[in-house]
Amino acid sequence: MKVLVVGGDGYCGWATALYLSERGYDVAIVDSLIRRHWDQQLGVDTLTPIAPILRRADRWRELTGKKIDVFIGDICDYPFVQSFMRSFEPEAILHFGEQRSAPFSMIDREHAVMTQVNNVAGNLNLLWAIKEFNPAIHLVKLGTMGEYGQPNIDIEEGYITIQHNGREDRLPYPMQPGSFYHLSKVHDSHNIRFACKIWGLRATDLNQGVVYGILTDQTGMDDMLINRLDYDEVFGTALNRFCIQAAIGHPLTVYGSGGQTRGFLDIRDTIRCMEIAVANPASAGEFRVFNQFTEQFSVLDLANMVKQAGDDAGLNVELRHIENPRVEKEAHYYNAKNTQLRDLGLVPHCLSESLLTSLLQFAIRYKQRADPSQIMPTVTWK
Amino acid sequence: MKVLVVGGDGYCGWATALYLSERGYDVAIVDSLIRRHWDQQLGVDTLTPIAPILRRADRWRELTGKKIDVFIGDICDYPFVQSFMRSFEPEAILHFGEQRSAPFSMIDREHAVMTQVNNVAGNLNLLWAIKEFNPAIHLVKLGTMGEYGQPNIDIEEGYITIQHNGREDRLPYPMQPGSFYHLSKVHDSHNIRFACKIWGLRATDLNQGVVYGILTDQTGMDDMLINRLDYDEVFGTALNRFCIQAAIGHPLTVYGSGGQTRGFLDIRDTIRCMEIAVANPASAGEFRVFNQFTEQFSVLDLANMVKQAGDDAGLNVELRHIENPRVEKEAHYYNAKNTQLRDLGLVPHCLSESLLTSLLQFAIRYKQRADPSQIMPTVTWK
Repeated sequence: MKVLVVGGDGYCGWATALYLSERGYDVAIVDSLIRRHWDQQLGVDTLTPIAPILRRADRWRELTGKKIDVFIGDICDYPFVQSFMRSFEPEAILHFGEQRSAPFSMIDREHAVMTQVNNVAGNLNLLWAIKEFNPAIHLVKLGTMGEYGQPNIDIEEGYITIQHNGREDRLPYPMQPGSFYHLSKVHDSHNIRFACKIWGLRATDLNQGVVYGILTDQTGMDDMLINRLDYDEVFGTALNRFCIQAAIGHPLTVYGSGGQTRGFLDIRDTIRCMEIAVANPASAGEFRVFNQFTEQFSVLDLANMVKQAGDDAGLNVELRHIENPRVEKEAHYYNAKNTQLRDLGLVPHCLSESLLTSLLQFAIRYKQRADPSQIMPTVTWK
Repeated sequence: MKVLVVGGDGYCGWATALYLSERGYDVAIVDSLIRRHWDQQLGVDTLTPIAPILRRADRWRELTGKKIDVFIGDICDYPFVQSFMRSFEPEAILHFGEQRSAPFSMIDREHAVMTQVNNVAGNLNLLWAIKEFNPAIHLVKLGTMGEYGQPNIDIEEGYITIQHNGREDRLPYPMQPGSFYHLSKVHDSHNIRFACKIWGLRATDLNQGVVYGILTDQTGMDDMLINRLDYDEVFGTALNRFCIQAAIGHPLTVYGSGGQTRGFLDIRDTIRCMEIAVANPASAGEFRVFNQFTEQFSVLDLANMVKQAGDDAGLNVELRHIENPRVEKEAHYYNAKNTQLRDLGLVPHCLSESLLTSLLQFAIRYKQRADPSQIMPTVTWK
């Protein structure tokens, strides 16, 4: 089966591309490499030294005999989209190819507008290309649990049945996203739902939680296959950041009280979820939404777990509550459903001290590459 | 009070600008005039011959002594936005300045992407400009009743209280928009709600129904002040189109069975609603949603009313059910709330045979300008 991984040079995309290639899928990558450029512009870098995309793909082929085609270009450029649709003829498109950082989208007006225009237009182009070339293609789109915000009722998977004034309907779940980035994902979801309805396309929206971890069986095979690991304030995410902070002796940066609760998952579960979605496509005309996380934690829970694992490893980790740069609730109800991917076969890797220890050891290995000045938040929501 | 009307050269914007000027507001218009260019590109034209924007504004001043400043430019161009914010210093911004046709957005990929990028980026620029120059400015944004789609429960005004699994929350009303244009308005609504939350902005989203009619006390004062009247398949809307079809002897184009039900209002109520919103601003941090329509009709109801009024005027009007170019339900529950504007003082002009007769007479006056080849739909949703 031919699977195109859009954004295949990124953290989730690269791990997914190798995993699906290993599992026997015929994989190609599309990437504009703009994320590497943004890193340069912001003066940040992955903790791990990642190889250029073509070198990585070549090394994968040397080690496994499996070929991954790489198309370098921007999906906002429709003639480019047409060219890879014609030459690769995908049966599924896994779309990770968006600006994916909330703080990046909050830097200033330019970054907000660019994030929304880039994400919305790129996603629209993929929808129109699927319609133009092969409406049977299954679009698997990376959404985010952040689309839901923190409602005071249970979070369902994309839809909710509402009783109101004696009548009932199953409607799209109300969304309360918390950054211009998260908003762009809500826009995408609405656009995809409409395309499925009018053109009969098939799509799965994966509302993913915060991903942690670094090693997968594939990216761990060779230094040339190593995945990116972000620890800076803009692209770094909660648990990975805490582990790297612990490794380099920086206090753990708990935003506000740390009561913010979110869904999390191991990157090894991300890649498995992608396989499950691809192997079980949505029906023609169906816009399906899965909540893709395995466990819920508060930020303070995570910080305490990292402190424990770090202290056990002799690191003497300090927690620091710092002023929250975001506008968000720090104490709230949070109960999100995540049964559909498990029903299709996901067996979660739950967060354990051994995972934290391994991630800490990994961070220590590369700690001389860390720039401590990139850790404290400077981008604020106000 | 200084009120900026963005999109003030358009059908609703022009009528609103004159009305508010007459009522004593200090009005300025911002418009890119792109709509006149799109008319040229599509080979369509308003039935009424409208004067160039500067001529119209000059004539208004000659007749009333009231000055309306005109800023010609594109709100997607932020330096232009900064320039009018600095020089006019508005206290309220009425934002009509978007691509507002569903069929236009469905022409092809380019029109879909352009509609969403134009509408979303322009609206984001206004939000950032309000934050930058004066967060106390009240943004009054034109949304559409089409954001809601046709749910099987009552449509509330922007929010709905949901009981679920023993808990309760008041959440944004779930949206099911029916074109790439309608989707752009949903994107805008989400963006504005977020800006109100994080920056404390004040905004009113007016989810407007289908507007009909042409004359207001101000636009009817002089031929140089005449408003546009669209009858073509792309920019024409249901009731106005039927009246012009009747006037030129074209069968009334009922899409499908005609059971599609929507909210409608007279343009004289549109301008009054704008005044009500401006005179009763949202609170700091509040994102307020009003449903701006006065009556519900099905398309077939309207066609029959126009046929009756036309026949009474000796026109011999024919109804024709044609294949529906849209993907939409033709039989559905529809019950939308619209109490908030009435509670603030709106006294509706209900649709009457006398309004239809007057609109028919108006259309007959200009019927030699009509191009019958622009009436049948060619843009399809499929």
